[in-house]
Amino acid sequence: MTRTIHVVGAGLVGPLMAIYLAKKGFTVELHERRGDMRKNSVDAGRSINLAITSRGWRSLQEVGLKEKVSAISIPMRGRMVHDAQGNTNLQPYGQTDAEVIYAASRSLLNVMLLDAAETYKNLKINFGARCTGYDPDKSLLQFDGKDIPAEVVIAADGAWSPVRKSLMSRIENFNYSQSFLEYGYKELEIPPAADGAFRIEKHALHIWPRKNYMMIALPNTEGSFTCTLFYPNQGKDSFAQLQTPQEVTEFFTRDFPDAVPHMPGMVGDFFGNPTGALVTVKCGPWNLSGKAVLIGDAAHAIVPFFAQGMNSGFEDCAVLNSLIDSTNPDWESVFTRFTALRKPNADAIADMAVENFTEMRDSVTDPVFLLKKKVGFELEKRWPGKFIPRYSMVIFHPDIPYAEAQRRGAIQDKILEKLCAGISAPEQVNWDEAEKLVKQIA
Amino acid sequence: MTRTIHVVGAGLVGPLMAIYLAKKGFTVELHERRGDMRKNSVDAGRSINLAITSRGWRSLQEVGLKEKVSAISIPMRGRMVHDAQGNTNLQPYGQTDAEVIYAASRSLLNVMLLDAAETYKNLKINFGARCTGYDPDKSLLQFDGKDIPAEVVIAADGAWSPVRKSLMSRIENFNYSQSFLEYGYKELEIPPAADGAFRIEKHALHIWPRKNYMMIALPNTEGSFTCTLFYPNQGKDSFAQLQTPQEVTEFFTRDFPDAVPHMPGMVGDFFGNPTGALVTVKCGPWNLSGKAVLIGDAAHAIVPFFAQGMNSGFEDCAVLNSLIDSTNPDWESVFTRFTALRKPNADAIADMAVENFTEMRDSVTDPVFLLKKKVGFELEKRWPGKFIPRYSMVIFHPDIPYAEAQRRGAIQDKILEKLCAGISAPEQVNWDEAEKLVKQIA
Repeated sequence: MTRTIHVVGAGLVGPLMAIYLAKKGFTVELHERRGDMRKNSVDAGRSINLAITSRGWRSLQEVGLKEKVSAISIPMRGRMVHDAQGNTNLQPYGQTDAEVIYAASRSLLNVMLLDAAETYKNLKINFGARCTGYDPDKSLLQFDGKDIPAEVVIAADGAWSPVRKSLMSRIENFNYSQSFLEYGYKELEIPPAADGAFRIEKHALHIWPRKNYMMIALPNTEGSFTCTLFYPNQGKDSFAQLQTPQEVTEFFTRDFPDAVPHMPGMVGDFFGNPTGALVTVKCGPWNLSGKAVLIGDAAHAIVPFFAQGMNSGFEDCAVLNSLIDSTNPDWESVFTRFTALRKPNADAIADMAVENFTEMRDSVTDPVFLLKKKVGFELEKRWPGKFIPRYSMVIFHPDIPYAEAQRRGAIQDKILEKLCAGISAPEQVNWDEAEKLVKQIA
Repeated sequence: MTRTIHVVGAGLVGPLMAIYLAKKGFTVELHERRGDMRKNSVDAGRSINLAITSRGWRSLQEVGLKEKVSAISIPMRGRMVHDAQGNTNLQPYGQTDAEVIYAASRSLLNVMLLDAAETYKNLKINFGARCTGYDPDKSLLQFDGKDIPAEVVIAADGAWSPVRKSLMSRIENFNYSQSFLEYGYKELEIPPAADGAFRIEKHALHIWPRKNYMMIALPNTEGSFTCTLFYPNQGKDSFAQLQTPQEVTEFFTRDFPDAVPHMPGMVGDFFGNPTGALVTVKCGPWNLSGKAVLIGDAAHAIVPFFAQGMNSGFEDCAVLNSLIDSTNPDWESVFTRFTALRKPNADAIADMAVENFTEMRDSVTDPVFLLKKKVGFELEKRWPGKFIPRYSMVIFHPDIPYAEAQRRGAIQDKILEKLCAGISAPEQVNWDEAEKLVKQIA
């Protein structure tokens, strides 16, 4: 007999997982705390803009949604770096037209996934169902007000997952960490121009890197940009120092002079939107026997600086789906293998995402970093497949697991260090030495 | 007006802190979940034997308890290493008669601290008071059944601290990690001989190192030894494989042949005592303004392999006490400075304690490790104060903070690596090179 699979959380990852399962023929119930976002206005001001990259696309393609989602996404070719004088400089993400990333609206994507989920007769969505935990002894999924029998639970209930809390109290020797950056983030807006046009370059991810902090902006299809300021919580230059409209205006005018004219609602946004936190959550094991498993942010919440939060969650769905080999699998074996396969990769992207904050807010203005970037691209051109820049492995090579990208990236970085020592332009690289070093990569 | 200070937890650290505060003139209430251990039999089978080292002694001396505690403690001069054939070899901890560590019974020490606490008229102990959390808004310390007003709380309520749980839910961006080793521990006993004598060397910490696991034994004043087996939870050689008396007997006979004749109650102990877990807890910030602060295991639970769990907790008390400069201090400033001073040291000893497990179960039989140990002692003799082995810094030099011991230890280890490369005896060291390297230590 095929049992009902309960998926908790209809954010981005939950509906995708539910679709995978429905396609396989399972009876699926998808439970969501909030009401149906398609009938209500959605939460605003707390979600960093999304970038969809190859790992996400691969999963969307597997469930037949790639085309639809493509239609609402905007290719971004690279980082448009804005200096303190307002000069800009595009640093491409990759080397081909295909090596780009795609901006998309979190809420539009969410709606698409819900719509797609509802096309399956064997998939039912319960809105307004706030899960409070899971009782594995009684196989009861607990909700405000009532409990429902649930023998197999897949929890995509977010960074503060109630199901994880239940697992944590039930699994002996459960490892857990929540680690906050000493930074917060604030969303702001660059609206479309009067004629509806994009006020700054549409096909780029804009960065205003300021060493210890930064603002970024991603395009939205209707002509606006969602800006996000990443800024220390405390100290000399910090949110704590920005208490009045005047302080906010002075800070933005000093640090982001070219952006200010495009942000008429800046002060209102600043004080109207909450300051978000940046947390990394690691834990394990992710499963309690064959009864429950964590996926997405519930298993591995990461900071947004590698744009892999949703993408890694979508990849979770693909990996978990690939392990389910029948409509009556041994769930304990499936969940245990999923955890074993996936956990090292989740740890790797969590750490790389934290590192990438430094790259975005600081390194992108460092001549040595830029030289290494150029030399890395050249090495990839000369020895394709052998040398692939770490960023490209993570973003454009879904066949390379995150942990492998991290491992190879560390080796490659040493090579770049060596090749770039004492030179100032890619032309000066000793290519014989380069060949020797690159061929040693294993 | 002097407010009442509430100390939560009358394990080892809580009473010591309470005594420090009472000596300073504060009105102190000490709350303990359990009944008065002096009237009841105490929990057995879950506490690894204690070793008191210089950091602990310093605090005990400050509150006038050093002599009394000395009377119930047994000096241990080094590690008595037992090989698989039952041969033994004493590896001294230090280089002088003073450089020894002291075994003591946790329960006797606890009783002494409670007795000492009760000599202060301004210190009241509430037994059977199970604290469930702290409400900082209402300044209420919560207990099963009733809440009591508490404006200043010092929580020494252990690795699973209920007060910490309250702080975690109230402090924004609270960092927290619980990390388990994949090992458990089991307490066993070597009773006194028929004539009351110690069956094995009294003045040593015994280790049966077996690469991936080990058994240790510490002497008790009445002639017995408390043995602890540290063993993987799962896998080929693991607790999971020891399910029957026969399996247990075969394992001990194979691995600890010289200990087995001294352990008549081995099988009974094995199945009667619980298997303990080995967890490291890190968190921060430790304080919520001037209202509550965490100390001891509540702030930094560590694994027992450097014998610094209690010693670091006792040092917490000394540090916190040193920051309280009046009977009406600015508690927020005191607690914030305490956290800032102490947290890096707590992190350092947590990491060094995990590393030391490898040293105890494996390295102590490695000729290179032993060579480096000898060379380290020789360097200390030749350049005293300049080179101090890391173990000695942690154990015998309370003036060197843990973080500093870790930092200098890393530099020294590189020096030892260099000096010992390609040699097989301390006599072969290049002492001119040694002098150059040691003088560079900063």
